[in-house]
Amino acid sequence: MVTSTQVAARSSHRPPETLFPPRALVRGEERRMPFDPDEWRQYRARMNDRILSADDRSIKRFFALDTDVYARGALDARTKELMGLVASMVLRCDDCVRYHIDRCLAEGASAKEITEALAIALVVGGSITIPHLRRAFEALDAFAAQR
Amino acid sequence: MVTSTQVAARSSHRPPETLFPPRALVRGEERRMPFDPDEWRQYRARMNDRILSADDRSIKRFFALDTDVYARGALDARTKELMGLVASMVLRCDDCVRYHIDRCLAEGASAKEITEALAIALVVGGSITIPHLRRAFEALDAFAAQR
Amino acid sequence: MVTSTQVAARSSHRPPETLFPPRALVRGEERRMPFDPDEWRQYRARMNDRILSADDRSIKRFFALDTDVYARGALDARTKELMGLVASMVLRCDDCVRYHIDRCLAEGASAKEITEALAIALVVGGSITIPHLRRAFEALDAFAAQR
Amino acid sequence: MVTSTQVAARSSHRPPETLFPPRALVRGEERRMPFDPDEWRQYRARMNDRILSADDRSIKRFFALDTDVYARGALDARTKELMGLVASMVLRCDDCVRYHIDRCLAEGASAKEITEALAIALVVGGSITIPHLRRAFEALDAFAAQR
Amino acid sequence: MVTSTQVAARSSHRPPETLFPPRALVRGEERRMPFDPDEWRQYRARMNDRILSADDRSIKRFFALDTDVYARGALDARTKELMGLVASMVLRCDDCVRYHIDRCLAEGASAKEITEALAIALVVGGSITIPHLRRAFEALDAFAAQR
Amino acid sequence: MVTSTQVAARSSHRPPETLFPPRALVRGEERRMPFDPDEWRQYRARMNDRILSADDRSIKRFFALDTDVYARGALDARTKELMGLVASMVLRCDDCVRYHIDRCLAEGASAKEITEALAIALVVGGSITIPHLRRAFEALDAFAAQR
Repeated sequence: MVTSTQVAARSSHRPPETLFPPRALVRGEERRMPFDPDEWRQYRARMNDRILSADDRSIKRFFALDTDVYARGALDARTKELMGLVASMVLRCDDCVRYHIDRCLAEGASAKEITEALAIALVVGGSITIPHLRRAFEALDAFAAQR
Repeated sequence: MVTSTQVAARSSHRPPETLFPPRALVRGEERRMPFDPDEWRQYRARMNDRILSADDRSIKRFFALDTDVYARGALDARTKELMGLVASMVLRCDDCVRYHIDRCLAEGASAKEITEALAIALVVGGSITIPHLRRAFEALDAFAAQR
Repeated sequence: MVTSTQVAARSSHRPPETLFPPRALVRGEERRMPFDPDEWRQYRARMNDRILSADDRSIKRFFALDTDVYARGALDARTKELMGLVASMVLRCDDCVRYHIDRCLAEGASAKEITEALAIALVVGGSITIPHLRRAFEALDAFAAQR
Repeated sequence: MVTSTQVAARSSHRPPETLFPPRALVRGEERRMPFDPDEWRQYRARMNDRILSADDRSIKRFFALDTDVYARGALDARTKELMGLVASMVLRCDDCVRYHIDRCLAEGASAKEITEALAIALVVGGSITIPHLRRAFEALDAFAAQR
Repeated sequence: MVTSTQVAARSSHRPPETLFPPRALVRGEERRMPFDPDEWRQYRARMNDRILSADDRSIKRFFALDTDVYARGALDARTKELMGLVASMVLRCDDCVRYHIDRCLAEGASAKEITEALAIALVVGGSITIPHLRRAFEALDAFAAQR
Repeated sequence: MVTSTQVAARSSHRPPETLFPPRALVRGEERRMPFDPDEWRQYRARMNDRILSADDRSIKRFFALDTDVYARGALDARTKELMGLVASMVLRCDDCVRYHIDRCLAEGASAKEITEALAIALVVGGSITIPHLRRAFEALDAFAAQR
């Protein structure tokens, strides 16, 4: 229906040269540096600790609930994490998308299953989700490279 | 942790009488009449035909794609419809929620599985989704009554 | 800066006659009948009971948390309900707006305070909130008429 | 690529009979009665007056600004109203969609131009906008019938 | 009505010195470095290729549709790209805003037309869009500097 | 109900070492460098000037209105800024959250009051706001360190 080249040509106005020098990797727009899973985990852990240190009862209960709702029940954890991924994508939250991709992989979801979940999110949420789809695949590759 | 009565008391300001006379059913706020699955299906079918009659190529391709993305692939249709339900709930679209509940039931999802999907959507999407959760359970009961 | 008449003229395409016969009240757009606080409370109470009857642990914990977070702390309950109103308006949830207006009145907020909260929501959320602003004032008048 | 029949079949679960008796028109889902442009205009005008009667300076200035921004400038009023329509559709506000369709027609936009604007909104906003697309076409037909 | 100085004073808490040393340009908040159109295009092209390499039929069809819907029809391509810009702004997607500004310029839209489109988006979407408006003007200037 | 450790363990996949070396501070996820209030203010001031230099009447009026609506009225400025914070959080705008935290502190709000406002936003807006909550606390600490 459409070749990769046709789509890329229109949707990116790619300049003549198609080489991506290391410099592009280091300074890519909104992604000055490639996504680094370990730093991302550290920032999350550090700030979660900071939030919980405020000792607000409602916030602490919410965090506990957020953990609990993905536990196996009638649906298994893998399916629930895939649902969390779809919800995160249609709501366009990069951090949440990364988190659920990491969790999906930990629960044994395949790249193909994750891709199909992302396709549903793309159709439900529309083209406005495409920038997040790019960052989702970047995260998927970064997490996969660690396993 | 909390009884149904305590929650209901706070979140509804229920008047002393708890009888729901037929009049309430007929004139309930935003729900003048109880949800009627058959009329809902007819309105959808009629307006889908109207939209497609405009003969816009992009719209027709989108509708085809919207059908295609839920077909069985690496994930089965039941899982995909549950994902569509979660996406619809966090995006707070009553019509879409009803549609995917209907489809989930058709694909064999249980009420418990649907409830767990709705719980994930509630935690991801927050209390702003609660009015849609009410209408989701109303639709679930109406569809179940037809089977 | 602008008269009510000028604004109304542009933004409503009001037909020549400006009489609002009872028929308009009965069949108003998206408001076939005027907002009825008691029926609204009954529908909420009935469906909250239905939701809690599903006995899902996460949903029950969320409902408890949703009650708890508005309790007096460093901020008083009136301020918290006004915050809930602003959040509901920018997220454009009519049901939530009505609920928090009802609660604001119960906590002693004045019509002027509620109006200022709605003005902030209008500026933050933009003209897309105006239809919800109409329904908010309709609810405000309906609740006030009961007190 | 897809026939109207195939799409309708999947996306509506149309019951065997495809006759739409008057009863369906009167009680259609979320549209108990067909959209009535005059009543809709009256409700808007009445509630706009109510809002402005609260005499809040910020709200009045916002309403004035909301009128002003669509006036002819470098872009003509027809183009601006079509933009307002696209914005309203991706933000999924039925009332705003109806208002801008009415204004687009008043500024001389054709049904084909309005349809193309709606197609862009559908692709940007995704399938979650489809229920609003149905109501948009219903409004388009109702407004057109008055001209 | 308001001078630039008054607005800036309130909405930015500008420190006494109003010089913007090169360091500020290099490390500006959320904009560590000024927006670089070429790197941005390269990241998009590279990740679009990555997404399409997953060979998911729905995703590929969506990308094709996303190209097609902006082609000249009853509305010309310039008008459609301006609509895409308004939709992207009210949905608050920086990447999409940049893309459509680039496309608007390529289709011959003037800075004044783009500004009027952004003004509509600001009024529809509210003050929450202002941070995106800042980045939109930064992108507009960066793209213009390349032509 | 849940310990900080349990929550952090699940929601962060923290690697064995829990030391946060300076490197993590410098290159933290989406926050390559720690939030710097002064640079952030400078970027805002510079781009606000750029926007106003476009001399669009609607945009200038909107900016004036955005200043005006937070002025003391029936509600004091501190309460209004806290409302702006809640609205910004549920709409998930990091820049707006930072701005209103800065303003709340300037109006004398305590860290505890700000935390309770954020807790309301978390419950209304759901877990999708958590990444913004992390950045809110980071900003709160950075602003507090300047006072």
